[in-house]
Amino acid sequence: MSGTSGARDLRAEVLEQARRARVAARELARTLPVAKAAALEAMAAALDANADAIEAANGVDLRRAQEQGLGAAMVDRLRLDRQRIAGLASAVREVAAQPDPVGETAESWTRPNGLHVARVRIPLGVVAVIYESRPNVTSDAAALCLKAGNAVILRGGKEAFHSNTAIAGVLRAALAGAGVTPDAIQLVGTTDRAAIRELVQLEDLIDLVIPRGGEALIRAVCEASRVPVLKHAKGVCHVYVDEDADPDMAASIVYNAKMQRPGVCNALETLLVHARAARLLPAIAAPLRTAGVELRGCERTRAILGDDVAPATLEDWHAEYLDLILAVRVVDSLEEAVEHIAHYGSNHTEAIVTRDEAHAREFVSAVQSSTVLVNASTRFADGGELGLGAEIGISTSKLHAYGPMGARELTTTKFVVLGDGQVRE
Amino acid sequence: MSGTSGARDLRAEVLEQARRARVAARELARTLPVAKAAALEAMAAALDANADAIEAANGVDLRRAQEQGLGAAMVDRLRLDRQRIAGLASAVREVAAQPDPVGETAESWTRPNGLHVARVRIPLGVVAVIYESRPNVTSDAAALCLKAGNAVILRGGKEAFHSNTAIAGVLRAALAGAGVTPDAIQLVGTTDRAAIRELVQLEDLIDLVIPRGGEALIRAVCEASRVPVLKHAKGVCHVYVDEDADPDMAASIVYNAKMQRPGVCNALETLLVHARAARLLPAIAAPLRTAGVELRGCERTRAILGDDVAPATLEDWHAEYLDLILAVRVVDSLEEAVEHIAHYGSNHTEAIVTRDEAHAREFVSAVQSSTVLVNASTRFADGGELGLGAEIGISTSKLHAYGPMGARELTTTKFVVLGDGQVRE
Repeated sequence: MSGTSGARDLRAEVLEQARRARVAARELARTLPVAKAAALEAMAAALDANADAIEAANGVDLRRAQEQGLGAAMVDRLRLDRQRIAGLASAVREVAAQPDPVGETAESWTRPNGLHVARVRIPLGVVAVIYESRPNVTSDAAALCLKAGNAVILRGGKEAFHSNTAIAGVLRAALAGAGVTPDAIQLVGTTDRAAIRELVQLEDLIDLVIPRGGEALIRAVCEASRVPVLKHAKGVCHVYVDEDADPDMAASIVYNAKMQRPGVCNALETLLVHARAARLLPAIAAPLRTAGVELRGCERTRAILGDDVAPATLEDWHAEYLDLILAVRVVDSLEEAVEHIAHYGSNHTEAIVTRDEAHAREFVSAVQSSTVLVNASTRFADGGELGLGAEIGISTSKLHAYGPMGARELTTTKFVVLGDGQVRE
Repeated sequence: MSGTSGARDLRAEVLEQARRARVAARELARTLPVAKAAALEAMAAALDANADAIEAANGVDLRRAQEQGLGAAMVDRLRLDRQRIAGLASAVREVAAQPDPVGETAESWTRPNGLHVARVRIPLGVVAVIYESRPNVTSDAAALCLKAGNAVILRGGKEAFHSNTAIAGVLRAALAGAGVTPDAIQLVGTTDRAAIRELVQLEDLIDLVIPRGGEALIRAVCEASRVPVLKHAKGVCHVYVDEDADPDMAASIVYNAKMQRPGVCNALETLLVHARAARLLPAIAAPLRTAGVELRGCERTRAILGDDVAPATLEDWHAEYLDLILAVRVVDSLEEAVEHIAHYGSNHTEAIVTRDEAHAREFVSAVQSSTVLVNASTRFADGGELGLGAEIGISTSKLHAYGPMGARELTTTKFVVLGDGQVRE
């Protein structure tokens, strides 16, 4: 087959999937909450019932990964054992149990002319999710999109192709069994990267693209897309220890934010400490050092903590380490901390530790990141922890949704206007 | 000057404006509601006080337009007489008087661990508005963006360049006088179309692009933009007269939807009539015909209304006439009406006329357009009429805002989380 006819086939295939998704979306928009919940329960049960087949398909991906010499961390992210497959199923059950956002009246009012106006929540339509190696995204994203009444087109990484194909097949069969069109969940059936480009050009058929993965993937999707994109980019998260911080609370929050799970986007990357709280640095640093955290500091930090703290460079202030490394800077004021965050941060998550309510208010008002915390760990910037239910990711762009996104953030509202013959003068 | 250095200058100029807008946006985000309202009042007063200068600048644009042989409708849209300039000022005063959306708590709750979670409304940041000939957009968009705490970069059409420059100059001087940075309102100082391309590439400096104008402009912006775009596309609006419609109400709503202002996006373009209500067609058509409306109908419509109704073609079902033309189709069921709207509509505005509550509910639930009305004219799909205050446009894409957009739709929310030392287990 020539390259040209291959490209034509690919385009036709992706277009056909998107068309079927559009039809499925219209059906889903009118599917009752109980029917969606039943379909989600059936999906969860099918994941449990087909764990052997999923594990076998994952075995094919794991063998290829090892043959190709992928790193241990990558292979671990790819792995689906029985416990993890049970985890996929229980995540889907959690989504089934959440309140259904569709049909909810977000607000309503009556106009002087008697028109009753309501904003009623409806699905977005068709969502494309483009992701990298972790196969759990396949069932997580499918479940959240279905809950919100959206059809989903999934495009996973090539490393997880067999795992994703098995999971999507199980979910589609479960939908059919539950009386919901299987076209509501579709996986792009090729690992050809050109398929992504074809997909994100279909502005008339797809309502939203969510890229989940590294910076290169996100940039490539944003540049190619004519469909709106919600970026889930990196988290350069800060804790600011104010002059008036409780010493024990400061040490506890910093340790938790850095250590509770260092490899995720809401983990602490840069610690800012007010000069009048710099005396707390040794007590904050000690448990981190014991836990094996490498510290990189400004000159004033090094003067307090010693020369074994490496000098922090410009790269350190910009860094999302996702690792046992912490940048530390002493600042002269809350304003300087806010300025640092605005300049080097990534609009993800920042926390202040303080006993001064005016300072807390000032920090909350000045910092424009998607989650701003007072006296709590950055690790709470998470859909489940904040009470949204399962999350499809954390948006770092301001449009539509900013911060953790649950099922409700996968919907929009339409205006419903009830009259009794009103016309405009 | 060579083309290359010209392109470099243009890029540098647009980049510099965007950088200044970003700085202004950070200042605006923290400007108090009273200060923003005072700045808006000062802007309105300055438009009144400088009406002579604005009218003179507009005169330059009008002379050029006439020299270049622009059509009378275009010239009329361009014209700013004393009355229209007073209208600009009063529109800005209306925005000043609206409630300020920034700082509003959209919702809040407490988690079992005692964390208090709130979604607090914040500005988007920097908004770029790219528009065509009507110079009123300059002050309307500037006022709404300022109300929402956003800096705005305005790029108007070349026909209105002198008018826009005069208006923007007046508004900037008023801001400075009111103690607000004039960089909050900036007009791109060139009519070179390449400036648009440069502007919409600046994804790190601009948060939202709103194109207002014809389909060619919107398509060009969408294709070039790396910044999220909210499309304000066309309105192919429908009224569906149900089998159980009140005859007088049907005639009155259809007439108002078509005739009250035929040239705007929420005007009626296609009338759908249930076969069992087709007997109402002569009474519906008579006043339209008297008013000079050309009817184009399906065969069943022509059988009832006569051969002087032209046969409707596929183009007619897709058409946004914005003119004294109406397409008419007889359908056999509410489902067929919904299907027609889904296939040919533009997600803008649709209305049903019926006395049957179940049919009204069915129509409202099945139609996924941004505004769905029961027993009211499509002309109410408007920010002011629905109670949002002045509108920056009507979004026909589902992300972020769907339907009429006021100042609140130019904001987003951040999560504010208050704790007393919580860490994650």
